[in-house]
This record gives sequence, structure tokens and C-alpha cells, in this order.
Amino acid sequence: MDEIDVYLRRRSEIYTWMARNSIAMVVLEDTEGRRDPAVRYFSGHPSDALLILTITGHCVLCPWDENLAYQKAQVDVVVPYTDFGRHPVAAIKGIAEQVGAPHRSRIEIPAVTPYPVFLRYVEALPEYDVLCRETGVHTEIARMRSIKDETEIALLEKACAITNDIMDRIEDQVRSGKIATELDVALLIEKEARKAGAEGTSFETLAAGPSRSWGIHAFPAYTSGAFPAQGLSILDFGIKFEGYSSDVTMTFASGPLTTAQEKQITLVEKAYKAALEIYKPGNFTRDASLKVDEIFRKAKKTMPHGLGHGIGLEPHEGPAVRNREDNDWVFEPGMAVTLEPGLYDPKHGGCRLENSILITEQGNRPLTRSRIVRLG
Amino acid sequence: MDEIDVYLRRRSEIYTWMARNSIAMVVLEDTEGRRDPAVRYFSGHPSDALLILTITGHCVLCPWDENLAYQKAQVDVVVPYTDFGRHPVAAIKGIAEQVGAPHRSRIEIPAVTPYPVFLRYVEALPEYDVLCRETGVHTEIARMRSIKDETEIALLEKACAITNDIMDRIEDQVRSGKIATELDVALLIEKEARKAGAEGTSFETLAAGPSRSWGIHAFPAYTSGAFPAQGLSILDFGIKFEGYSSDVTMTFASGPLTTAQEKQITLVEKAYKAALEIYKPGNFTRDASLKVDEIFRKAKKTMPHGLGHGIGLEPHEGPAVRNREDNDWVFEPGMAVTLEPGLYDPKHGGCRLENSILITEQGNRPLTRSRIVRLG
Repeated sequence: MDEIDVYLRRRSEIYTWMARNSIAMVVLEDTEGRRDPAVRYFSGHPSDALLILTITGHCVLCPWDENLAYQKAQVDVVVPYTDFGRHPVAAIKGIAEQVGAPHRSRIEIPAVTPYPVFLRYVEALPEYDVLCRETGVHTEIARMRSIKDETEIALLEKACAITNDIMDRIEDQVRSGKIATELDVALLIEKEARKAGAEGTSFETLAAGPSRSWGIHAFPAYTSGAFPAQGLSILDFGIKFEGYSSDVTMTFASGPLTTAQEKQITLVEKAYKAALEIYKPGNFTRDASLKVDEIFRKAKKTMPHGLGHGIGLEPHEGPAVRNREDNDWVFEPGMAVTLEPGLYDPKHGGCRLENSILITEQGNRPLTRSRIVRLG
Repeated sequence: MDEIDVYLRRRSEIYTWMARNSIAMVVLEDTEGRRDPAVRYFSGHPSDALLILTITGHCVLCPWDENLAYQKAQVDVVVPYTDFGRHPVAAIKGIAEQVGAPHRSRIEIPAVTPYPVFLRYVEALPEYDVLCRETGVHTEIARMRSIKDETEIALLEKACAITNDIMDRIEDQVRSGKIATELDVALLIEKEARKAGAEGTSFETLAAGPSRSWGIHAFPAYTSGAFPAQGLSILDFGIKFEGYSSDVTMTFASGPLTTAQEKQITLVEKAYKAALEIYKPGNFTRDASLKVDEIFRKAKKTMPHGLGHGIGLEPHEGPAVRNREDNDWVFEPGMAVTLEPGLYDPKHGGCRLENSILITEQGNRPLTRSRIVRLG
């Protein structure tokens, strides 16, 4: 399937949904503070734009950077943002008129629209019914994006293959002593990712030596401190290839370890294996999380974060894999999700094992080969 | 002034404002997708938390990572997020009860709260009047944060001093040929920033060789492509020191240049100088922007972005320096702002000159020494 067809096919699903739900116009917005990669998903335009889909099957892009749009966007029309004085509300009003959205029809804006901005839309569009809903087109898009199509799986596989190569290189350089600090490992990742053609890392690499690995997300993300060193060191990173993110965490266990540290490793590995059995089509994602909770609870431990999340155009997207009661996601073939049990102790440090996993018809297929690396 | 006093003094300004405006409780939230460094500004806790200020002068932190809070936060009480099943709305309801906020009093939540989430707050807090306003406590905090106190100026000066050293090093290595690609220069910045004790870069370094410098913000931010090379190359970066961000852009002009490129450089430098004259207490920031527009318009050029913005705990914060009619910011002593005129041409590439500038009683003091570097 060529590139243009991919976007057309994705949009046509939404046009159908709009027809069924009587929505005349859907507004997507990617802007500083409110990123929405759905703009890229439906148009190829990477960032900073409004994307408007109409029930009549038209797709209008209003980009901050017009030149970038002419290079990247696969849409019906590009309307410069400057035509509307760089005001999103004015742009939507203008575009609604240009595409001839019938008065009294329904326009759905992003669910993350701040309440005061929502009021501005309502004020500016008195002829329309402006919807901003927790459950609406954005839920539908999240559900759609949670199941990767062939194009997406190929890109994720590429991101994960680069990640695997980088992990192997890191392990080699850790063992040979070439990597001595958090900074060393973080810069190696940045460099190798870009050299392999990636857009970069998909989030700030988190490299925490033993004195800092107790933090779920160490702050700062990396320093010039020792990495690894005696005890438990955590390395959490992902790389982004044509927009698609991998996500892995390695733990380096440098002996001699305390009994508590050995126990952390054993428990995390046990939880990982047990959860992977549940990462299969038809199972509730919540059940994988509850299984891990149970294993940790028996050892009087608690995991202070979710068990996993979808990956794709965002490093965190649907499905959620966590124990909250309102989580009703079910694993389906085509989902790409992380599995990342971890335990943290202010005294003994942290241990986390994370891979990126594709749910398949048969069960699952790990796309990455992260591991707990034992040293010395 | 010691560290704790700084936070107490900042909070006391807000307590006074709350008393004047009859707000019983103010809620600040820093979370993925809705970052708010005001949490750090008032508490020292770096990220991912709810911060609650009460009219009775109490400050409660509800952090995602409890261990991090015990290390970093200077607050009256830390309440673990897990006490509320990790639901922000439940946390606010619980804390309102714990601090004894009187029924029928006013609770102000972040102005960026999505409309559907706002509805959840209203539903969960029927005893209170929930405010989510475009102009409210968050405007007041932005205004307060736009004027840096002594502690902040010292941190910005440190961030800018590191930035200056890095710029000198970059110019040296560009001239000696040691830097040959966008990747080289971006990694050098990451490395030198962390080695100098910075938390990292404050946004993704943007290094664009001549074939990509036409983009306001090149995409991807940097690649393994040549940098610099014949023509115009842009390097936009900032570093973050204890939370505070510098922001500079260098242009490398590698001859021979076209007449159009020479003209871009001359115009950008002219606009920069003219605008700097207006960066003085009492002047409207909009007037600096209009002056630059005028210079460019005379040459039949347009700048596709704002002229500047405040810097501090965010790489973009108040004041805005732009030409929109609703911009009524006035330069005041203590403001730290960028000045960044630029011109872009799909054929000839882009040229931008940006420095970080402190507004003083007397006028202004550039904190960074960026420049347009002419090569060969």
C-alpha cells in the first residue's frame, strides 16, 4: 500500500464514524502543551497544525509552518494559519465557513480543550453545536490507533530493531568498561539512534546509577554520575523511527548484591514471565496488572506505577495496562504494548525490566530483547 | 535568602492574592500532557504532582513519586497520590476535606483543565464553587513568574554562562572542522551541558544545515546531515540549570553567499539592533515586534514567528513579545526574555539571531553572546 493510500484509508474510517454519529466536522490540534500525533496519523504532517475532517470526506490542514506542510502533508487542502491571525478559534470558524459546514450541525473539538478555550469556541461558533467530550471521536481515534496497521507494524519493527542493536552495543561497552557514566550511555543512544536513521529518542533517556535508581523516573534524567556501579542501575529509553517509538528498560545488576536486591530481581523476572502469559488476545489488560500485583503482594511489595501502555506515534498511548477499576481494555491482535514490572527501594535501589511487545493472533511477539544484565 | 525562605515568600504572595480574591483553595497540577512548573516554583518539587495552596496559608503536595518529594519538596504536608487511587479529582476532593476548606467556598483549578475533566471536578465537589478561568490565579502566577527574583536571576545567569561557554566551544570546533554534522553539534551541547552541572537541554536542540534551515523549527530537530556547509545553517538551543532555561540561536554563514542570503543577514542584524533599543522598562513588548515587522516589510519580507518570549522555569513563558493586538505586556525590570528575529526562504535557507536578555532598571543586559558566525 503506498503512502497516500494509508492516510486515505485511515481517514475513511473516521468519515464513516462521523456519518454514523452525525458529526459534520472534527477538529484535531497539535500544539505546544497539547500534542496530538493523530494529526500526523491522518495526514503525514509531523506537528503543529490544526487538522479538520468533514463529513463530506474532506481533509483540511492548517499548519503553523506552511513550507513543512507542502513537503510532508497528504491532505486535500492546506490553509495557512496566518490567514487567521494565528488564532485557532478564528481558524476553525473560517474553515467551517470555507467547507460549508451546515449551520446547526455538530463540530467536535479535542477532548483536551481547556474549559476557557471551549467557551471561546462556543462563543465564536453560535451557528454550530460545539462538542468537547470525554467519550467521542478522540476515544474512537485512540481505539483505532491502538491497533496498528501493517505500515505501523513495519515502522515499529524498525524502531525496535534499532533499539535491539543499541542495547547489544550498550551491554558490550558496559562490560568492556567503555561506558562509565550515565552521560556516556545516554549520549551513545542519541548518537546511534540518529546514525541509524531514527528521528531521535522518543523521550528523555533515563539513566540512573545505583544511588538514584530508587526513583520511578530519576531526576534529572541523567547526570555525569557513575553508571553502572555496584548495586542496581536502571536504563529506560526508546527511539523514534518515522514517528514510531520503541520503549525498553534494562537493569544492570553489579555484584556483590544484597539479599534484598537479589530478591527484587527474582520477583521482577517472575512477574514479567507471569504477565507475558496474559498478554494474549481476549484477555483484559487489567488482569495482567492484577497478576503482577498479586505476585508482589505475596512478597509484601508494591509496584508504584502501571504495568504497561501502548506505543506508537506516542511513547504512551492506548491501551493502558494497569490495575485501575475503570480499565476495560482488552488485548487485541495488532496492539503494541510495553510490559514493565519494577520494584523500588530507597535503600537498595530499583529494578525494572521492560520490553515492547506485539499482540498477535496466536499470542504475542516481543519486538525488543531487553534483559536484566548481571555484571561481576 | 536561604532556599526554604524563597518558597515561603513566593507562596505568601499567592496567599495574599487568595485572601483578596476570596479563593479558599488553589490547585496546581504538573502531569504528562499538562506541565506546570509553578509546582516547582512554589515547592521545589520538580515534576508530576498536585500542589494545593489554601487561604489559611497551608501548602500540600500530592506527588506521584513520594520518595522524590521527601528529597526535594519544601511544603507543609506531603500526601501520597496512592491514598486517592491515583485519581486527581479524588485527590482534590480528599485534600479539600483534610484541610477543612469551608463548604460553599471557591476552589480554583488550572486554566488548562480540559472541559470534560472540569465537569468531573464540578460533579465531585458539589459543596464547592469550582473555578476554571482564563484570567485568574494562573494569570497572577504567570505575571509573578515573569519578573524574576534574585534567586532566579542567579540561576538564569548560571544557565547563560554555561551556554556562552558552549557557544564559544562550538564556534572553535566548527572553525577547526571538528564539527561536521548536525549530530556532532547537538551531542556536543548535551555533553557539555551535563558536564557543567546542567539538568540537560531545555528543549530539543535544533541544528539545521543549509538544506533544512528554511524551516522555523526543522524536522527532525537534528540529523546526521552536514553542519555547517555552504549557505546558512541554524543552531537553536538552550540549557536548563536547576530548572532555569537559557535560549539562543546562532546562524553559521558559510560563503560564498548569494545576494539574497547576504540581504537576509543584514536585515536580521538590523532588526535585532532596532528591537534591542525597545527592550526597556515601560515599553510595550508589542512595539518591539511591530518595529521588526516594519523593517522586514520595507524589504518585502515577513517573519513567520513571534519576536521573543520570557524564559525561566519554562523555555517559553511570559511575557510574550509579539505583534498580536491582544498582547499588552510591558517590559519590566527583572523580566528575562529572548530576542530572536529571523527570516526564512525555501530556496536560500534561514537566518535567525537569538539571545537571552535581562530587562534592568536602566534598560537591558544581554545574558548570552550569540552571533551570526561568518565562515570562509
